[in-house]
Amino acid sequence: MTTILKLGGSVITDKGRRETVDLPALETAASAVADAGVEDLVIVHGGGSYGHFHADEHGVSTTEGTHDAHAARAIHDAMKRLNGHVLDAFGQRDVPVVPIHPFSVAARDETGTLSLPLDSVRTLLHEGFVPVLHGDAVAHAGEGVTILSGDEIVVRLAAGLDADRVGVCSTVPGVLDTNDDVVPEIQNFEDIAAALGASESTDVTGGMAAKVRALLDLGAPAHVFGPEGLEAFLSGESPGTKIEG
Amino acid sequence: MTTILKLGGSVITDKGRRETVDLPALETAASAVADAGVEDLVIVHGGGSYGHFHADEHGVSTTEGTHDAHAARAIHDAMKRLNGHVLDAFGQRDVPVVPIHPFSVAARDETGTLSLPLDSVRTLLHEGFVPVLHGDAVAHAGEGVTILSGDEIVVRLAAGLDADRVGVCSTVPGVLDTNDDVVPEIQNFEDIAAALGASESTDVTGGMAAKVRALLDLGAPAHVFGPEGLEAFLSGESPGTKIEG
Repeated sequence: MTTILKLGGSVITDKGRRETVDLPALETAASAVADAGVEDLVIVHGGGSYGHFHADEHGVSTTEGTHDAHAARAIHDAMKRLNGHVLDAFGQRDVPVVPIHPFSVAARDETGTLSLPLDSVRTLLHEGFVPVLHGDAVAHAGEGVTILSGDEIVVRLAAGLDADRVGVCSTVPGVLDTNDDVVPEIQNFEDIAAALGASESTDVTGGMAAKVRALLDLGAPAHVFGPEGLEAFLSGESPGTKIEG
Repeated sequence: MTTILKLGGSVITDKGRRETVDLPALETAASAVADAGVEDLVIVHGGGSYGHFHADEHGVSTTEGTHDAHAARAIHDAMKRLNGHVLDAFGQRDVPVVPIHPFSVAARDETGTLSLPLDSVRTLLHEGFVPVLHGDAVAHAGEGVTILSGDEIVVRLAAGLDADRVGVCSTVPGVLDTNDDVVPEIQNFEDIAAALGASESTDVTGGMAAKVRALLDLGAPAHVFGPEGLEAFLSGESPGTKIEG
């Protein structure tokens, strides 16, 4: 029973202040994971106020790259600093976390298609460790180095590890409808459109809609919830919005 | 024309003093690489006084592993600290270095056979970056986490990247014979045995002999030389010992 837990960058950092960890939030999340004692767990975290500041400064996005090694390193090093804080918080609570830095393992081809070999993650999981991945810089054929988001990693891990459950912990308590109420369940594209107020004939765009569409295709149930739902998710419940295509 | 350059841990660190970089030696090496302007270059460095201290403390070797996440992280983090110093020295001289941390990408199966997917390294090379790898901890099926040496990485890279030249810069000026003279060329196993004073009927063991045997099998000429030979190697000459099977 493999579980993937995504901790949003906005959950564990103060997104408005450069390279600032939200330590109480991070420690609460780490304690919840330590107390739950979930086996076969992989954690992915976002960039928050670490990766994004540096990516913006250098004009690097998921599609616009850089050939400047200093810029690539600035983004990657910032993410390793945040990852170090995450590992410290979980490690202090004896969650057997070890880091997997996506820049070392991932690559995009000319079409942007991601390669993310999982040999290390699979072996570490099987040996009882909790691999922790994160949004990162990524080698990109023709573009130099672009950005790989935590969400894209989650989708890839879910497929590659044949995950049983996926939890996406962000700052909102679930997928919200146009009245700001949590949508309890989403099973298909029409549900998203209805919930997010888009008609079937128009493009559903924007962060949450894109995220939900990706989660619909996982082949495993995904749960989108806020920090207050983390404990429930880890104990097998369905906080926030359940997304199952 | 792909070149792989290994910088021995004993070259760039003070091996007797815990986590101490030999900064003059590191800067000399970085300047030589910057001045040579070699294209399609991959650098690998050893652990020196970083990795080895932590590996020894936790009783971890290439075959004896640990399931203690704190121990795995102690070894890996030490190597990332050394790697950071190496990247700083080269980056300050505008060599477009970026780090590849083997722990994130490599794994050993139950028999110890190494998997080291090279998607990231190949893409970065092709985009004009200089990937820098290093000896590291590695996930190992059944053992938890063991050690992956820089030498093993060199052998794997040479095959996987179809390298044209391999340079191994250590603290000795080449493979030494029993009179401590540099052996100019080694073409087969008998040459090693003769040079290192072992009879054909006995096992050739020991660090240098094992290293030379691995280099004989590369499929590319390898050069073993001391720091004073680095400039010559980078300009296409054959300092120290040339090993070509």
